[in-house]
Amino acid sequence: MYPICRSITGAGVGATLDILDRFVPLSRIHVPSGQRVFDWQVPKEWNIRDAYVKNSAGERVVDFRQHTLHVVSYSTPIRARMSLADLKPHLFSLPDHPDWIPYRTSYYRDNWGFCLTHRALQALVDEEYEVLIDSTLEPGALTMAEFFLPGESADEVIIYTHICHPSLCNDNLSSIAVAIFLAQALRGRARTLSYRFVFAPATIGAIAWLSLNESRVERIKHGFVLASLGDSGRFVYKRSRRGDAEIDRAVEYLLTHDAIGSCEDFSPYGYDERQFCSPGFNLPVGRLTRTPNGRYPEYHTSADDLQFISPAALAESLRVCERICDLLEHNRVYLNVAPKCEPRLGSRGLYSNTGGKNPSEFEHALLWVLNQSDGNHDLLNIAVKSRIDFRVISDAARALMEAGLLRVVQMRARGEK
Amino acid sequence: MYPICRSITGAGVGATLDILDRFVPLSRIHVPSGQRVFDWQVPKEWNIRDAYVKNSAGERVVDFRQHTLHVVSYSTPIRARMSLADLKPHLFSLPDHPDWIPYRTSYYRDNWGFCLTHRALQALVDEEYEVLIDSTLEPGALTMAEFFLPGESADEVIIYTHICHPSLCNDNLSSIAVAIFLAQALRGRARTLSYRFVFAPATIGAIAWLSLNESRVERIKHGFVLASLGDSGRFVYKRSRRGDAEIDRAVEYLLTHDAIGSCEDFSPYGYDERQFCSPGFNLPVGRLTRTPNGRYPEYHTSADDLQFISPAALAESLRVCERICDLLEHNRVYLNVAPKCEPRLGSRGLYSNTGGKNPSEFEHALLWVLNQSDGNHDLLNIAVKSRIDFRVISDAARALMEAGLLRVVQMRARGEK
Amino acid sequence: MYPICRSITGAGVGATLDILDRFVPLSRIHVPSGQRVFDWQVPKEWNIRDAYVKNSAGERVVDFRQHTLHVVSYSTPIRARMSLADLKPHLFSLPDHPDWIPYRTSYYRDNWGFCLTHRALQALVDEEYEVLIDSTLEPGALTMAEFFLPGESADEVIIYTHICHPSLCNDNLSSIAVAIFLAQALRGRARTLSYRFVFAPATIGAIAWLSLNESRVERIKHGFVLASLGDSGRFVYKRSRRGDAEIDRAVEYLLTHDAIGSCEDFSPYGYDERQFCSPGFNLPVGRLTRTPNGRYPEYHTSADDLQFISPAALAESLRVCERICDLLEHNRVYLNVAPKCEPRLGSRGLYSNTGGKNPSEFEHALLWVLNQSDGNHDLLNIAVKSRIDFRVISDAARALMEAGLLRVVQMRARGEK
Repeated sequence: MYPICRSITGAGVGATLDILDRFVPLSRIHVPSGQRVFDWQVPKEWNIRDAYVKNSAGERVVDFRQHTLHVVSYSTPIRARMSLADLKPHLFSLPDHPDWIPYRTSYYRDNWGFCLTHRALQALVDEEYEVLIDSTLEPGALTMAEFFLPGESADEVIIYTHICHPSLCNDNLSSIAVAIFLAQALRGRARTLSYRFVFAPATIGAIAWLSLNESRVERIKHGFVLASLGDSGRFVYKRSRRGDAEIDRAVEYLLTHDAIGSCEDFSPYGYDERQFCSPGFNLPVGRLTRTPNGRYPEYHTSADDLQFISPAALAESLRVCERICDLLEHNRVYLNVAPKCEPRLGSRGLYSNTGGKNPSEFEHALLWVLNQSDGNHDLLNIAVKSRIDFRVISDAARALMEAGLLRVVQMRARGEK
Repeated sequence: MYPICRSITGAGVGATLDILDRFVPLSRIHVPSGQRVFDWQVPKEWNIRDAYVKNSAGERVVDFRQHTLHVVSYSTPIRARMSLADLKPHLFSLPDHPDWIPYRTSYYRDNWGFCLTHRALQALVDEEYEVLIDSTLEPGALTMAEFFLPGESADEVIIYTHICHPSLCNDNLSSIAVAIFLAQALRGRARTLSYRFVFAPATIGAIAWLSLNESRVERIKHGFVLASLGDSGRFVYKRSRRGDAEIDRAVEYLLTHDAIGSCEDFSPYGYDERQFCSPGFNLPVGRLTRTPNGRYPEYHTSADDLQFISPAALAESLRVCERICDLLEHNRVYLNVAPKCEPRLGSRGLYSNTGGKNPSEFEHALLWVLNQSDGNHDLLNIAVKSRIDFRVISDAARALMEAGLLRVVQMRARGEK
Repeated sequence: MYPICRSITGAGVGATLDILDRFVPLSRIHVPSGQRVFDWQVPKEWNIRDAYVKNSAGERVVDFRQHTLHVVSYSTPIRARMSLADLKPHLFSLPDHPDWIPYRTSYYRDNWGFCLTHRALQALVDEEYEVLIDSTLEPGALTMAEFFLPGESADEVIIYTHICHPSLCNDNLSSIAVAIFLAQALRGRARTLSYRFVFAPATIGAIAWLSLNESRVERIKHGFVLASLGDSGRFVYKRSRRGDAEIDRAVEYLLTHDAIGSCEDFSPYGYDERQFCSPGFNLPVGRLTRTPNGRYPEYHTSADDLQFISPAALAESLRVCERICDLLEHNRVYLNVAPKCEPRLGSRGLYSNTGGKNPSEFEHALLWVLNQSDGNHDLLNIAVKSRIDFRVISDAARALMEAGLLRVVQMRARGEK
């Protein structure tokens, strides 16, 4: 998918989704240009065939065919000859990284431009240039795709990935890949929760999706935005605006338990968690990245390429996403049905019959689950409080359920930090 | 009491209570074998006269008369000759502490066994042994005892001590001794609160007691389980499941104020606080120990003997228990009856009439009590907040009461951590 | 004002207010002697013309004309000859600071006395002395003064300064000066809030003022007592009894943001915040000082003189007071009127139209204000949470108001610490 020129609309998005379709069958959603989505309007569809800046010798000194980043995304068409002085306001480079091409967009103001390395910019001599951007901005549609996996419950986990960036690997081909493999993995499993994967352009895509689904967002019980999952950095989870949603507690537990990352409080800048966590929605949706946007120099430049990401990092990201879903699947609030004093565990084969020695970790887990299962604590709370691995706590709960000592209650535990 | 062979039932318990009766008059409670107590059933009564393992030379190589720990508690009777191979599954030792005898029980599964030093175990040669356990398991009763000290109020402090362990000193003869002397000390004092001392076997005793008193547990306003109070370790208080009960705040205050110990959050493993703090009761009952169970190598071995504990440690434990009760007696919520601006203290003889210099600690205490006595803060809260000794705060409150500036309110302060 | 002999009543107070009247026009309030004010009674008016101790040679060895501190404030009149032994109980000195005269009062017990340096005390020989205190204690009035600045809203900020201390500079001429210049500064500005400056004697003044204004204290939305603002120490803000009032959060923000001071929890000893924060009022009134009372050796001695304070310290104190008022003026709770997803900022000229690069601090501030403006967060909360300067946050809110994206809500944010 790397060479495809994606933007928030246009053929590149469709071509990308065609590839994803080979892995899981996607449902596409087309929102026509001009449609109002909250305070916004779906823009015209942008397509581009070619673009270049030619010098007086007729050589392409900037060539869209070499790199999709060379053209400012959503550039209006132009065919002109102009002096370097007239051209320069339309050229963008990175003086601090003279060999990298920046990524720039101009979605909502008619403009055109080229991005190039600073070295190339400095090599331009004062002569007349031929400028071509063979693009179109016409009524069309914004395209998104969904993959839905029903579970026993209608409660949904939304996993949201932006797909609008052109030839940039970490941001966000890495997460598209992780999301598709996560979808494949979950497809083969029994599921209590339902899962909805959404692939859509950043900002306008999330806004359009929320606008179309406004009446159905209540079903979203957990969610996370995936971005920048291929670099070598440790994981960073950004909490939902609520700060103590179950997804926040779950990811914090996993990252700290395995010492593979850290959590940050919500802030209103970043990826599409911005829209899910706008005050009118305030959904329990966080964001999982490795190095977050803007904190690595390669971000939004041509240096975010296939070398910047690694298969090992992608595989670990996938594993973490699977564990998050696994924890959400198994986290429950139980009620101890014999809450007065401890029930006899030995007679049910759950506890050693030789007294006097220290109990095993599993026996401790049984005691913790029984003691805390008063309807106010979920298994995740109990794992945190007891410092016993969630999987052991979850196994203990299953054993106690089988022994008839617990029942599931519907209420969700209030967050306990 | 050290040589007596105690267990959860049987003559050893009665013999122990006979000794305690010399200090304060106990009321005994007998719960017959077979009676249902919540999820449990009172077991048969176990009594033992003799037990040994004799070698082919007729020598007692394991001898119950030498140490009560040599027999697994609740061992079924046996009289047999067997090879070492057949005997070995019934022998328990501690390879890491080859000179210590472990403590093992088999209350709820019919079994028999011997505990011995690892050195003795290794000395056994491959020959035929004569095995005798002259025990009985017959319908009888589980015996507990209470000592009740009425106070002005029906609100009760429960002080609970397990008495089922055989020849083990720190766990729990130390606490039996501290509890009895605490009872003697409180007996001679004016009491606002009522005090109920309970001496009962661990686990099944607490469960039976709660079962018999289920309808009356509301009167328990504070409580603490006493255990392991004779070793040289610092005090460790384990908070009640509530975590911020008045007893929790009181003990935390005293231990930190005197820098003699620390507090831990509740966990569902330990002594009989497990039952009082089961979710169906959730009583304000914590646990005071020095080194907690399982954190010293001598725990549940013959090394927990008379040398392991000291009179000085026992005396300091008693002093701490007295101070806890003293604090509970004096902690009140008052209401400032002249809450608008400060009342005149000088005219009431409570404040120096020469102005311009810094007030005394007692004058500070008066100001703190007046300022905080809005019905939401008890004296303990005020002591913590003001960093003035609780006794000075308490004296200030008494002086203000006498001056007609405060009245007692019934509501308890909500916990403030 | 330094040489004037002030006390809680008498001509010195009037003379001091006459000077203040040159800066802003004050309204005087006279409360007659004997009037009940809560638990207190306004004392007789004390005036003094002369006082001395003369030795047998007729020399004034203690002379009120040399320093107002030489006489214990509210000394009853006396004209007598007496031995050193009889005089000594009426003499006060500071052995640790032998060259300083202490400050002592005897407001509510009829007594007389002299304060002198310890060196002077020790120089007194055993002879007969002539003692004169030419004072009067007669029915009169306690005098306070107010300066009121109305704002758009009836919500008031009370700024309270005690004026009863005689020749002591830091405590509290420093604050009288700061308060008067703050009044002048606010007078020239548009004001949303109303401001009430109160100049009154300590303790009895605050009690009398609250007694007279009991029915109107609800209008006090914020307040601070000013004291000891001329020394070289860092600022110390003592929180109101509430602890998380808006004034508490505002001053804490400013002191920590500029790293010029720190905050302490409320305690019931200090200046007149004691009365405002008595439990029957519990008003949101804190206290701003530099070094608090009792924490510098010069406190309440003749060493608290014109050399002890500095114009630079006073000027910085004034600046901090102005910034506190400025923050209170601009702090608001807004409601995002388009709370579902982000509104388009670019089309309103508020956001750069070239995408792909990191937003400016102002753009971040816009996102923060929009995201948090759900009626539960004021701008101060948002500044703390976002770590963006309050003034930038406030500017962003103004821009969003102008763009029609916010509206003001009346409810106050609950305190968020």
